[in-house]
Amino acid sequence: MGSKRRDRRGFLKEGAALAGGFTLGAVAPAMGQTPAAAKFIKGNKDQIAYGDRSHFVTSVRIPHGGRPSPDAFGLVFHVATPLQDSVGVITPSSLHYVATTRGSFIPDIDPQEHRLMIHGLVDRPLTFTLDDLKRLPSVTRLHFIECAGNRSTPKAKTVQESHGMTSCAEWTGVLLSTLLKEAGVKGGATWFVAEGAEEVKGASSMPIAKAMDDVLVCYGMNGEAVRPQQGFPLRLLVPGFEGIFSTKYVRRIKLVDRYYMNYNDYGHLRQEDNEVALGYQVGPKSVITYPSGGQLLSGRGFYEIRGLAWSGGGAIRKVEVSTDGGKRWKDAVIQGTAARMAHTRFTYPWTWDGNEAELLSRCTDELGQVQPTRAQIAAHWNVPLDPSYTPPGLDNTIQPWRIARDGSVTNGNA
Amino acid sequence: MGSKRRDRRGFLKEGAALAGGFTLGAVAPAMGQTPAAAKFIKGNKDQIAYGDRSHFVTSVRIPHGGRPSPDAFGLVFHVATPLQDSVGVITPSSLHYVATTRGSFIPDIDPQEHRLMIHGLVDRPLTFTLDDLKRLPSVTRLHFIECAGNRSTPKAKTVQESHGMTSCAEWTGVLLSTLLKEAGVKGGATWFVAEGAEEVKGASSMPIAKAMDDVLVCYGMNGEAVRPQQGFPLRLLVPGFEGIFSTKYVRRIKLVDRYYMNYNDYGHLRQEDNEVALGYQVGPKSVITYPSGGQLLSGRGFYEIRGLAWSGGGAIRKVEVSTDGGKRWKDAVIQGTAARMAHTRFTYPWTWDGNEAELLSRCTDELGQVQPTRAQIAAHWNVPLDPSYTPPGLDNTIQPWRIARDGSVTNGNA
Repeated sequence: MGSKRRDRRGFLKEGAALAGGFTLGAVAPAMGQTPAAAKFIKGNKDQIAYGDRSHFVTSVRIPHGGRPSPDAFGLVFHVATPLQDSVGVITPSSLHYVATTRGSFIPDIDPQEHRLMIHGLVDRPLTFTLDDLKRLPSVTRLHFIECAGNRSTPKAKTVQESHGMTSCAEWTGVLLSTLLKEAGVKGGATWFVAEGAEEVKGASSMPIAKAMDDVLVCYGMNGEAVRPQQGFPLRLLVPGFEGIFSTKYVRRIKLVDRYYMNYNDYGHLRQEDNEVALGYQVGPKSVITYPSGGQLLSGRGFYEIRGLAWSGGGAIRKVEVSTDGGKRWKDAVIQGTAARMAHTRFTYPWTWDGNEAELLSRCTDELGQVQPTRAQIAAHWNVPLDPSYTPPGLDNTIQPWRIARDGSVTNGNA
Repeated sequence: MGSKRRDRRGFLKEGAALAGGFTLGAVAPAMGQTPAAAKFIKGNKDQIAYGDRSHFVTSVRIPHGGRPSPDAFGLVFHVATPLQDSVGVITPSSLHYVATTRGSFIPDIDPQEHRLMIHGLVDRPLTFTLDDLKRLPSVTRLHFIECAGNRSTPKAKTVQESHGMTSCAEWTGVLLSTLLKEAGVKGGATWFVAEGAEEVKGASSMPIAKAMDDVLVCYGMNGEAVRPQQGFPLRLLVPGFEGIFSTKYVRRIKLVDRYYMNYNDYGHLRQEDNEVALGYQVGPKSVITYPSGGQLLSGRGFYEIRGLAWSGGGAIRKVEVSTDGGKRWKDAVIQGTAARMAHTRFTYPWTWDGNEAELLSRCTDELGQVQPTRAQIAAHWNVPLDPSYTPPGLDNTIQPWRIARDGSVTNGNA
């Protein structure tokens, strides 16, 4: 186990320690320089009940797209997750992105009063209390939710601005199929409409096939109750579909025989014929979170490039990284087992030589779908390759980060 | 997909709906009974930055063992996780158990000032800043931590009181082996001592083989920075070992040639020869969290029994449940893929007939170790089977919950 040989010094051999005098672990200073904590926080009553994070940790959500949240009309409330500070695959519930265009006020629902009704083309309409649902067979699954408005513009300075409208949590609840089997699905039922208890009753139509597959009626999130901003006490979780389908405060599921247009379709209607699109399953997407826009490399040497990949098409099978603007690609390491329709952490060992570099990532999902470039998307929609152009679907194009000689990192699309 | 046939009504066929007129989904009431939210919480600045849980959710940690926390001397601060409300396998960081006998005040450490020193029997002593560590190859793993004092006494009324000193989180950091390979382990190094930046420098000796296997130096927990109560900015995570080894505020790791006794050994010293034991790897353990002590079944019919299983010996391979006090055992369903040294959620479908019942669970880990009964533990230590007897090791005995005819649930050991 022991070794005195310098040539067995592992990952730093060709990395930081030998790349020019920069060492990651300095020679040990006197113990006086690794002091015991000088200050203490008194364990008060609140800290017994429900602990806090450190006051030194200042990572917060920010309004999305540079617009105020809530907006002047009190309708748009879009706040983005600080992905640049993310570790692992779980997004803390307090930092999970929020998007609503249905009022910036959070519904304050008493769970004892809340009901979920299942009706329409069923043999037996059913209404469930929260306590009813918690008695039923449950599942826990890791799933991302991504807003269809999660797009990288040239103005985005950080990965929070370019990609922060996606988050991932451990969701717990009952399979919608469990409830539908109990209600008895009639033969003519081909779609279902899910409606939440919001002011304008945000609702979506979805294919019944999805309901019978993997849709969850969730009361749990990251080990506790779903948060109010995420739909407390009950959220429909529609794995891999655009976030708007994961109906918050869900109170009604109606089985119907056709697609019903409703409030949520505003996001799918376009003036241009070729852009009229109903988006459901989001495409394969990845982004490097470290190093990313706004961060600073403190010197040449070893850096682990880290990022997240996800797809509505299932599990991530491969992530590739380029450090030269896309000329050469190499496989990144997928950390742990990639879960289906979940953020997947990838890492890639890199030694920065101090020169300009451009970092990219692209992923492939279990369906074989590959994350596209911006040029491919422009060609698909038959539009010029204009960095300010916004494609009608969810933007899953490859994100470049430029490293300057001074170590600063900026948006390669800018 | 559709079906009008009553006999295809799934899990409720022999369950709640047909067990005596009690249905889980009532016939749908008029829509007036599934109201839209009447009240709203205004999205204020704090709710943009870092969201809160609902004020209707009141699940909190409580002092462990009925003793005040902090105690009269300001030394003992033990608070337990509300496992009765747990869902999935993640414990929210705010509800993760805390145990310290080294001062009830939480060290308030500036991460910019913190250092981790690796020294002793190494070729090259090294000191790392937080930024240094974040550049290195990282891993993210789900691991439980359990306090050696997590024992079920006859006085415990709830699963929080009997088992709440265990929690599970997604931990992110650098493998200690990565750092040790860089420092160069000398041949004579057989143990290491980890020391934290607490008042009395809580420290533990551990075998070097464990260091080279799976010990993590963690800066991340559940997707954000490690919380102050869990060792911010840096915690050693020693998978499967008693919680005291997972050194908080870790600032020094010294490689040595023998076991060094230190402050933390107080927990391993006993007066009786046959009880002098150094406990490391915790044994296989499981407990039913729903229904559990203090909860009330609202009537006969279908209930999904749910619980957690974990072991220091690796992954959970099997969980069995008995609903008749241990006469007959049946396999529970393990939810998802059981991770090594991690809480594992199990479920078991059960229809309560309204009579007295006693619910038990027992697990088997990948080493083939089976969770013992209290009688087996008493025989092992050659002591009478006295419910008030406290075995010297960590208590991993089977926990019985008694169901009375009125649906109330109480501790079967009482």
